[in-house]
Order: sequence, then structure tokens, then C-alpha cells
Amino acid sequence: MPESVRERLIRAGSATVANMLLRRGLRNTVMAGVVPLAAGAPPMAGPARTLRFIPAREDLDTLAGYASSENLHRRAIEECPPGAVLVIDAFGSTAAASMGDMMAARLRYRGVAGVVTDGGYRDAEAIRATGLPCHHRGNAPKATPIALHPVALDEPVGCGGVAVYPGDVLLGDEDGVVVIPRELAAEVAEEAADAAAYEEFAALEIARGRSLFGLFPATPESRREYDQWVARGRPGRK
Amino acid sequence: MPESVRERLIRAGSATVANMLLRRGLRNTVMAGVVPLAAGAPPMAGPARTLRFIPAREDLDTLAGYASSENLHRRAIEECPPGAVLVIDAFGSTAAASMGDMMAARLRYRGVAGVVTDGGYRDAEAIRATGLPCHHRGNAPKATPIALHPVALDEPVGCGGVAVYPGDVLLGDEDGVVVIPRELAAEVAEEAADAAAYEEFAALEIARGRSLFGLFPATPESRREYDQWVARGRPGRK
Amino acid sequence: MPESVRERLIRAGSATVANMLLRRGLRNTVMAGVVPLAAGAPPMAGPARTLRFIPAREDLDTLAGYASSENLHRRAIEECPPGAVLVIDAFGSTAAASMGDMMAARLRYRGVAGVVTDGGYRDAEAIRATGLPCHHRGNAPKATPIALHPVALDEPVGCGGVAVYPGDVLLGDEDGVVVIPRELAAEVAEEAADAAAYEEFAALEIARGRSLFGLFPATPESRREYDQWVARGRPGRK
Amino acid sequence: MPESVRERLIRAGSATVANMLLRRGLRNTVMAGVVPLAAGAPPMAGPARTLRFIPAREDLDTLAGYASSENLHRRAIEECPPGAVLVIDAFGSTAAASMGDMMAARLRYRGVAGVVTDGGYRDAEAIRATGLPCHHRGNAPKATPIALHPVALDEPVGCGGVAVYPGDVLLGDEDGVVVIPRELAAEVAEEAADAAAYEEFAALEIARGRSLFGLFPATPESRREYDQWVARGRPGRK
Amino acid sequence: MPESVRERLIRAGSATVANMLLRRGLRNTVMAGVVPLAAGAPPMAGPARTLRFIPAREDLDTLAGYASSENLHRRAIEECPPGAVLVIDAFGSTAAASMGDMMAARLRYRGVAGVVTDGGYRDAEAIRATGLPCHHRGNAPKATPIALHPVALDEPVGCGGVAVYPGDVLLGDEDGVVVIPRELAAEVAEEAADAAAYEEFAALEIARGRSLFGLFPATPESRREYDQWVARGRPGRK
Amino acid sequence: MPESVRERLIRAGSATVANMLLRRGLRNTVMAGVVPLAAGAPPMAGPARTLRFIPAREDLDTLAGYASSENLHRRAIEECPPGAVLVIDAFGSTAAASMGDMMAARLRYRGVAGVVTDGGYRDAEAIRATGLPCHHRGNAPKATPIALHPVALDEPVGCGGVAVYPGDVLLGDEDGVVVIPRELAAEVAEEAADAAAYEEFAALEIARGRSLFGLFPATPESRREYDQWVARGRPGRK
Repeated sequence: MPESVRERLIRAGSATVANMLLRRGLRNTVMAGVVPLAAGAPPMAGPARTLRFIPAREDLDTLAGYASSENLHRRAIEECPPGAVLVIDAFGSTAAASMGDMMAARLRYRGVAGVVTDGGYRDAEAIRATGLPCHHRGNAPKATPIALHPVALDEPVGCGGVAVYPGDVLLGDEDGVVVIPRELAAEVAEEAADAAAYEEFAALEIARGRSLFGLFPATPESRREYDQWVARGRPGRK
Repeated sequence: MPESVRERLIRAGSATVANMLLRRGLRNTVMAGVVPLAAGAPPMAGPARTLRFIPAREDLDTLAGYASSENLHRRAIEECPPGAVLVIDAFGSTAAASMGDMMAARLRYRGVAGVVTDGGYRDAEAIRATGLPCHHRGNAPKATPIALHPVALDEPVGCGGVAVYPGDVLLGDEDGVVVIPRELAAEVAEEAADAAAYEEFAALEIARGRSLFGLFPATPESRREYDQWVARGRPGRK
Repeated sequence: MPESVRERLIRAGSATVANMLLRRGLRNTVMAGVVPLAAGAPPMAGPARTLRFIPAREDLDTLAGYASSENLHRRAIEECPPGAVLVIDAFGSTAAASMGDMMAARLRYRGVAGVVTDGGYRDAEAIRATGLPCHHRGNAPKATPIALHPVALDEPVGCGGVAVYPGDVLLGDEDGVVVIPRELAAEVAEEAADAAAYEEFAALEIARGRSLFGLFPATPESRREYDQWVARGRPGRK
Repeated sequence: MPESVRERLIRAGSATVANMLLRRGLRNTVMAGVVPLAAGAPPMAGPARTLRFIPAREDLDTLAGYASSENLHRRAIEECPPGAVLVIDAFGSTAAASMGDMMAARLRYRGVAGVVTDGGYRDAEAIRATGLPCHHRGNAPKATPIALHPVALDEPVGCGGVAVYPGDVLLGDEDGVVVIPRELAAEVAEEAADAAAYEEFAALEIARGRSLFGLFPATPESRREYDQWVARGRPGRK
Repeated sequence: MPESVRERLIRAGSATVANMLLRRGLRNTVMAGVVPLAAGAPPMAGPARTLRFIPAREDLDTLAGYASSENLHRRAIEECPPGAVLVIDAFGSTAAASMGDMMAARLRYRGVAGVVTDGGYRDAEAIRATGLPCHHRGNAPKATPIALHPVALDEPVGCGGVAVYPGDVLLGDEDGVVVIPRELAAEVAEEAADAAAYEEFAALEIARGRSLFGLFPATPESRREYDQWVARGRPGRK
Repeated sequence: MPESVRERLIRAGSATVANMLLRRGLRNTVMAGVVPLAAGAPPMAGPARTLRFIPAREDLDTLAGYASSENLHRRAIEECPPGAVLVIDAFGSTAAASMGDMMAARLRYRGVAGVVTDGGYRDAEAIRATGLPCHHRGNAPKATPIALHPVALDEPVGCGGVAVYPGDVLLGDEDGVVVIPRELAAEVAEEAADAAAYEEFAALEIARGRSLFGLFPATPESRREYDQWVARGRPGRK
């Protein structure tokens, strides 16, 4: 993913990007119930690599077997490319951890952009300390093999009620995680950056006491005022 | 699946079969929240064939596209072998239907043993009229493409919080749906049939006023009494 | 509402009607979690009259005050026109009853078409005995003033997550309750009746062993076959 | 409990009895989410005997240990007096069964009035066949020791969010289960029977087309009419 | 609302105020599941102005139509008086935002005391930055018209399971949001301030090692000690 | 509980301790949905003393009666030994507070190690200020007698879905609360401390870019490397 696309997405933010997707008729692009692990953590943006879990079975998912070199959970950690976002379909279950602090540290070292699950993590404190951007549904302290079995990498999955196809672009920040169909990423990034820039203008106007009517959402007249403000060098911008 | 295995499983019932799996250390074999569509419907038993859904996306899941001959949802209906149980992983969502009455009628005609989903069905009334044994979580009246996208056949899936591997044997009746690992089906069927036969004996004893203590669960002494009762030709059995 | 419209809607059924609304871009027209009170009860169809509840307050909602002639709950029962469907917005709460058996008997006598709430009823047994078609979320045995306060009649409300504007047409049957915007009722009824008639044809074909592909959903060719079947007098129809 | 009290309670029904308790300031006497196992089953009324469960632990709750003669679960079945209602506090958990069909048959034989749990039962079909009145939250097919450990008999417990003190009178029917503080049972039974008798009169009036206003809830005038109707021998009563 | 009333309420805190309402028989005055948006934000107190949402409909709630000058959502923002608390009935739905950062900035500028919804907000980060006191149920990042339709201003509504009548006084702080019937606000403020003052005394006593018995809740003797402590000039008070 | 045991448990952390219990076949030792009240609060470890609540009843649980010297809720606060953890079974209910700030201050003064409930607390702000380590499910601002009745001390209870027997050792930190059967505490503490020490080594290796495979989980080879690292004086350790 080009750095310019990444930059624009992060600056626009997940809520604005979701609005751009809504304009294209996509109404279900923000993961439900998925929140950042750490308040104030940096945002994440990157193409998705997926890992799918199904429920565990006591004979197939033992602590011993979890150590095998074939284990898909740990292969996901070792193979997710730098700059990508690892998306874990845990079918919403916090009955066991989708990831722990050792895995988070390894992902951080390897340059992965972030992790998202609709399950949860263990060792939340230690994971925050790695600085890796993470989103999840809630705490899941039990060891993974108690309830989760890794079954496949790089399939289309669901996560937080949203479809994620490998290569789709994920943007995660304080407001949540939005999934952008891969072929739309560049144009959506550009449009969202424009919308965010307009919102900077609108925020300044509101701070001066202007009413929302005729300002936000934009009207043709307010777009013209915005263009003039841009032409003047965006005065007042932080 | 041999008819003798099928017969024993059905006579034993899902609750007893689950007990046999518990003895083998498998504690999570009964689907959560999954109930029969019709009270009094015949039970189902057969090897699993799976269909996996993920959330829909408005551009990929249109009513028009749903009519395509490649559509995996309808391929599942057309390709599920006679005697098998179609297991649909709808990740617990009743936001749209996993199946409707036309599909149920087609499955019935093709000799499929039954359908299980952790989502729901539409046209419940008409589906009951087909006589096809079905289990689901609850009513799901909206058209499938509103919320569900079929992504793969014959993968390991989760359904109602239980792992289902293709070929695992499903038994569904009034008490729910239990999943039997494929390699255990024959021995579990035999053990469950024996446990169910013992329960017939125990029920007769209870009807005569006998206490549960020393009778149920069985003790070595009560097992001997049972053997004698069998030797006598199972007197009193309905 | 013309009798022809009512008849067509009932024959088509709520699931088919919901499909027609989906074609018009309306994806959220079926009430969530709302089920018939009685299995096998007759369906209901009619224009909506609404009653809105908010949470009760102990000083405003006493058993004594509940007897007042101004009480909006009982005015709703006395004023709902014959042939209309009374829609009760109980904000999903089953903490107290939206209706009891006396009210149901009175509505039945007055010729009201049915009642829908996203709360629940008390005296379920006695209500069934009146024969009044009813839908609700689940049993709510406590007296209304314990948790519910009637605040207005004939406002736009929400019920089961769907918007209901006074005059919208409600159709409720075994599959649930669908809300049809008032101005669309006649054309949707006609379209749904046609779709239901096509489904009769398709069901006969499936019973003869025909595959779903090329039959359901319909294709231009299968629609031509259907036209021929109609021309021949719909042979085989029950 | 005197037969006259039992008879009045059953005839009045749980919803009316709950109204009588509301008049005494008791607003939380009906168990939440607890429903009859069998539609159309006879009602139950009797003094409560309690059994309290806590979560199971794998080392303490084995299938083998479950067979012990000390097991409190089975002692509850063997010691609950005839005419009492066995109340099982399963802290709302349907993760395992509060009771199965063998236990139900034994309770039935022993003349226990009924069973209530805020968990669930297994072998629902077979339990219905015993004719024992039962209420529960929902199906719970797994064996008890998987998730439940019996810890005490005859303690004050919670069940379905309502306090149950040993000796409190439980009334369970189609509308749910209401808990009557033991010292109030006789007077509440009498008041409820009177309220129910008034409701018979009101139902007849409604069937003749009379409005709810001035009839239900009762007014001093309508009570006088009722007295006259009683004096005339309750004409029209079924 | 007089400044003295506001001051007392804020100092007493929502939990203490709820206790005072409980003494008056009002048991349901604290909104369920409603939490502050920002930890450490200043509290809010003021008379309620209400906005009621119902579910959206795709033909009535478009992004374009959202820009109309009649839109009740934005009228609520422009018309809520300074010092008032805007109460938004979103029927508990976080499917779309009850408010975003532009609206929050505008409300802040206009001197509104705070916002409460039983839905959620988008742009949480930016809203916190405005300093406007806000409470909500949880994050709701999707654009309002996706799921919410504003239907009326200044009606009685429900919010978080509590009735809110226009003019009722809302107090929101770290512990939640309590709703005070308008006619009770002054006397409750005074009583709560007294209770809070007593709690300061009790806290000092506990810090010196005194037992709760005979101190908290207060007894006649401990009230006399408190009076003496007040007479002595409240020594030890921070 | 010996200080050495306490120290080891705290250093290992609840997630690692839960792993040690899993090795012994105990899969359900971490309380579900129970979180620390304050981010960054110190951890707690100590033997459990229990308090069991059942639902309140308006005639038994009055504000006046709550002041009685016999009240078990306040006896729990006064009698819980220093160094113990008070475990409150509130059957998951946040309808009223399990504890408030006065009680927390008293417990802190008395040297109790911490409090855990599967209900919630009121006065969260003030409780945090006491510095007492607390865990709960969520905010519960209403006064205790509104919904909770204290029925017994020092019984076996459930809390957050886990069995707690008096004397079991509780460890609570950022990751949650784990319950250690009393007879296992010493050996589990030792094993967990060893596992935590190994994790320090593994974390250093990961920071140097080493793969998870062959490192975490441990293998016999990596354990030998660990032994050498210990022998060398644990170089690099913070």
C-alpha cells in the first residue's frame, strides 16, 4: 500500500472513511464491538492478512500440540508481512486469547502494522507495553487452546460482523476499525482526506460561533468558502 | 454411515451420546442455542457436509448475483449427498436466512438427512411442511444476501460453538444437536445404545418406586441386575 | 385498506413481502425478535395505529392511577379502529405487560385486526383463547404500571427495530411481522402475490425433482414456463 | 399447605397473584425468563424446598463422584417432600442440566408438586412424558457435573432474579412462576381468588361489548354490579 | 435552575442523589449502562431538553436529506438552551451515532451543560477534546442516518431505562446519570448536600479507624456527633 | 498465606497462573467479565472470604433495616481478616451496589487485601481514591438494598462463573481474577514463578529478533538455553 494512501487514511480517521464507503452504498464496514486495547495508542492502516479460528476440541487442541511447528496460530505470527494488519476471526469469542504478549512482541519486531480480532487478548498490560496497535472486543485471559483452534490462513473471514477479504485495507484508530474493499482504497483515501480537510475548516468556523446549518454537512456555498480558505493558505489551522 | 450406527444413535438420543463423549474427555459437543424447528419432527443422523457464511457486502451480495449458477449457497443444496447432514456456519447470525422453503423441499427430495445452522431459517411454516429435519437458533426471515455471503464448502467450521469437521457425525433430536468426531462414531453408537438400554431398565425400576441411589448412575450391582433383566427377556419393556 | 390488498398480502406471506421491499432498497422492514403468541394463529394485516410507552415512575404510575379514564393505554384499546393493527412501542421491555387478556378480548370484540409489541403480554393462555392475532417478543407477566407508562398515541414509533409510521401497513404471520410504508402497500401487494404464485409453480417443479438452478430464483426462461403453466390453468395446484 | 389455598392459587393464576403482591409493595415476585417446559402442562403450587448450585470444578465434579450416595443433587430428589416444589438455583446457567428424565420420573413417583430452575433440563421429551410440572429457562443438554456443583439444600436462594426462602409458596403455570412469601400465602390466595372471580364477570361483560372504562380495572360501581351478579348465581359462567 | 441547586447536586454526586430519590419511593432513577465518555471530565447538571430517535428507513434517511435545514437532529443542537442537558433517546442503539464532534463543538460553544444518550457517539477522541460533558452507552461510529431518524423534540422519552420528562433535572458524573423529577430538584439538592456533608464526616471517622457500625448509615447518635463536628468548624475537612 | 507465595503469584500474574491450573486439568479458573476498577491499581493476592447475596425483597430490604447491627453486608466488611480477599457473589447483578466508598475505606484501613464481585460498585471515583484493589463487572450505582440481600458469610459461592471455596487463593491484576484451589496454591505459585522467569528470557530473545518457533512455548532445547542464561546471571534483565 502506497505511503500516501496510508497517510491520508490515518489523517482522515475511521469514522470519516466509513462515511465515504456509505456514499458508495456500503453500510456495514465498521466492526461492531471492537475497540482499541490501549487508549492513546497510534492508529494502524494496512492490507489484511487473515487467520480463522473455530472452536477447540480437547483431543485436537492440547497444550503440547500447541507447541508444534505446524501450528497455524504461530505461523500467522511468523508469516504476516511487515506493514500488513493481522485480522483474526475468533467468531466473537473471548473464551480464550487470540493473542498474548510474546506474539505481540514478535509481530512488533517483524514490522506488522497491527492486529485486530473480534475475540480478545491476554496479557493486556504487556501487550500495551510493546506499542503494537491492537483492537479487540474485550479481555480474554485463558490460553488459546482452551477454546480456539486455528484452521486456515488467508481466507475471506468475518470479524466483528464485517467481511474481510485478504488484501482489503484496514484502518483502526480510537473510533474503531473500518474495512475498505481493496480496489477502493486509493480513491476512498483521497476523498476522505478531502472530507477531513473540510472538517478542519468547519471546526474553525464552529469555534467562531457559526451555526451548523449551512456548514455541516457541507452545502455548495460552504464548499466555496472552504475553497477560498484553502486559497488563503488555510489560516487558523493548527 | 452404516445403518446400524445410525439406528443406535437415534435410539440413544443426543443427550446420552453427549455423555459418552464426555467420558472420552470431550466436554463441548452439543451446539449451544440450537433447537429443532418443529416440535415432534423425526430425528436426524448422518455425516456432516459444511457450508461457511461470512457477512455480506452490498456490492458482492445482490439479489441478482444470488441467482448465479456459481452461487455456493445453492451449490450446497444441490451437492450435499443423500444421507448427509448439511451444517451451515452462519456465525450465529439471524440477520438473514440460512435457508428457505424452496431449498428445504429440494434437500428433502434429494434425500439429505437434515440441516443444522447456528443462524436461522425463513418460511418456517413451509419448511416444517416438507418434513425435513431441521435445527436452528431462531427465526431469520430476511433474504440471505442481506446479511450472509457463502464463501466455502466442506471446510472445518464452527456451529453453535462446536467444531464440525467434514465427515463428523451429527445427531439431532428434540434435545439438540451433538457432534461426534468421525473416527469415534461406531464405538460411541454402541456404547450409547448400551447406556440407553440400561436407562430403559432404570426407568422401569423408578416406575416401581425404586430410589435413584444405587440405580442411576449405575453401580456394579445395578449393572448385574440389568444383565439379569436382559437375560430374562427385558420384561416390562414397552 | 382494500380487501384485495389485504388478501394478497396474507397469501404472499411476510417473508415474500419483505423481499419485495428489499428490491426497493428497504433492508430493515422485519421486526427483530418478534414472534407470534400462538402457533397456528391466523395472520393479521392492516394499517398501523401506534401507542408509545416510556419507562414508568412510581409516583406517576400507580395501580390506582391506572384506572383513570384518561389512561392512554386503555384509550388505545378503545380507540383503535376496526381492521387496524395496534402497534405498541414498549422499547423492547418485557419487564411488564403491554397487554393482558381483558384488553385482548375487548380488541377482538371491536374488530381490530391484531396487536404487535416489541415487549410482551401477560395472560398468554387467555389471550390465545380470544383468537386475536398477536405478536410479541416474549412473556411479560407483571402488571403494566410496574415498568411501562403510556405517553402518546399515533406518533411515529420504533417497534422491534423497525420504524412504524401511522398508516403503514403491517403484515404478521408465522414468519414474523413486516412493515410496509403506506404509499407502497398496493403495488407491493400485487408484486408479492405474483412472486408467491411463482413460488407455487416452483414448489411443484421441485416436488417433481427439478434442480434449483434455473428455477429459483427465477430466470427469464423459468418465467416463461410459469406463464405457460398459468395459461394451462395452473395444473397440480392444491 | 391447605388444599383450599392451593386450589385458590391455581384458579387465580400466577399473573393475578403477582398483582396481589404488587398491592403489598412487592414488585419483583415473578421469575424472569422462566417458562413452562411443556405447553398445556398442569400448573404447580406448593411450598419451596431449595437446592443451590455453584459452578463445577473438574477435580471435584467427576462423573464417578456424581454417583456417590452423598451427592446433594440426588439427595434433593430423594428428600423433597410430597406436595413441595423443588426450586433449583442454577444461577441462570444452561451450560449443564439441572435435572434429567430419571430424576423427573423419581420426583413424580414421590408426589413432588413440581420443579423450577433458572437453568435448564435435559431429556426434555422424556421429562414431559412423566407429566411432572416443570419450569426452566431453556434447554440444557449437557450432563450436570460439566458445569454445576450442588452445594446446599434448604438455604435461601435466588431463582430467575427472585428471592426464594424455604417455605415460600410457589405457583407456576403458563404465565410463569410467582413466589409468595410464606406468611402471605393464605391471604393472597383469598384475595387473588376474589380478583379472579371478578375477572370472570368482567370477561362476560366484555364479550357482550362493554368498554373497559369503568369495568377493568374495577371501580366501586362495577364492584357493586359484580356483587349483584354473584347474588344472581353468576349467570353465564362457564 | 438556580446556581445553588446546581452546585449542591454536583457536590453531592449522582449516587447520593439517587439515595434521596429512593427515600421518596423512586427506585429507578439511574440510567442503566450509561457511562461518561471521558474519565475525569467535569460533571453536568441542568434541566432536560429531549430529542427522540426511531429507526431509520433508507428512503427517508439519506445523507442528502440529512443536510436539510429542517432536520430535527441539527435543530436539537441549535435550539437546546444554554445550561440545559440534551437528552437523546436512541432506544439503546449504537448502530449509528447520536452525535459527532462537530455537533459537540457547537453545543459547547452555545453553553449547553452536557449531552446524554443511551446510544453512542462517533469521533470520541475529538468530542473529548471539546471538553463538553457527555455520557453514552458505547462507541457508535456509523453516520446517524444509517440507523437513526430524529422524530421529535421535547417529548417525554426513555433513556437508559429511565423516564425523562422535559424540565426534569439531570445530574451526570463519574458514577452515572440520575434523573430528578423537576418539582423535587430543590429539596433533593438540599437533602443530598446534607447527606454528602455527613459522608465527609463519616469518611474522616473511618480514616481514624472507626467501625461502620453506628456510623454508616447514620444513627441518631452519630448525627449528633456530626452536628458537633459542624459546630466545631468541620475540623480535618479537606 | 506465606509472603513468598503471595510474592510469586503477583510476579507471575493471573494469566500465567491460569496456565498452570490448566496443566492440572482445571479449565475454568478465571472469572468472566470481571475487570479491575482502576487501571494501574496494584494487584491483590490472598485467601478468600465470601459473602453471598440473593435478590432483595421490599419488605425485608429497607434502608432502615440496612442500618441494623446484624446486617451481614456490614459484618462482612468488619470481619474479613487482614490479608484476605473479600469475594462477593452478586449473581452477576449490577442492579445495585455490592460496595460503596465508605465500605472500601473501612476495608482498606483494616488491611484487607482486596475485593472482588461479579456485580458492581458505586462511588467508583471515591473507591479508587482509597487505593484498595478492587475488581467488578461494571458500575452499579444504586443503593444495595434496592436489589441485593446479604444471606450468608463463608459459604462456597460462585463469582464470575467460577467456584470459590473459602480459603481458596485469589489473584487479581490487570488481566483479571484467577481462583486457585487452596491446596494447590504453594506449588502453583512456584511453577508459575518459574514460567514467568522463563517468559522474561523469551521476551529478551524476541526483542533480539528470534522467532517464536522453538522458543515459545518452551522446548527442551530452549529450556536448556534458559538454564544457561540463569547460570550467567540473567544478563539483560530489567
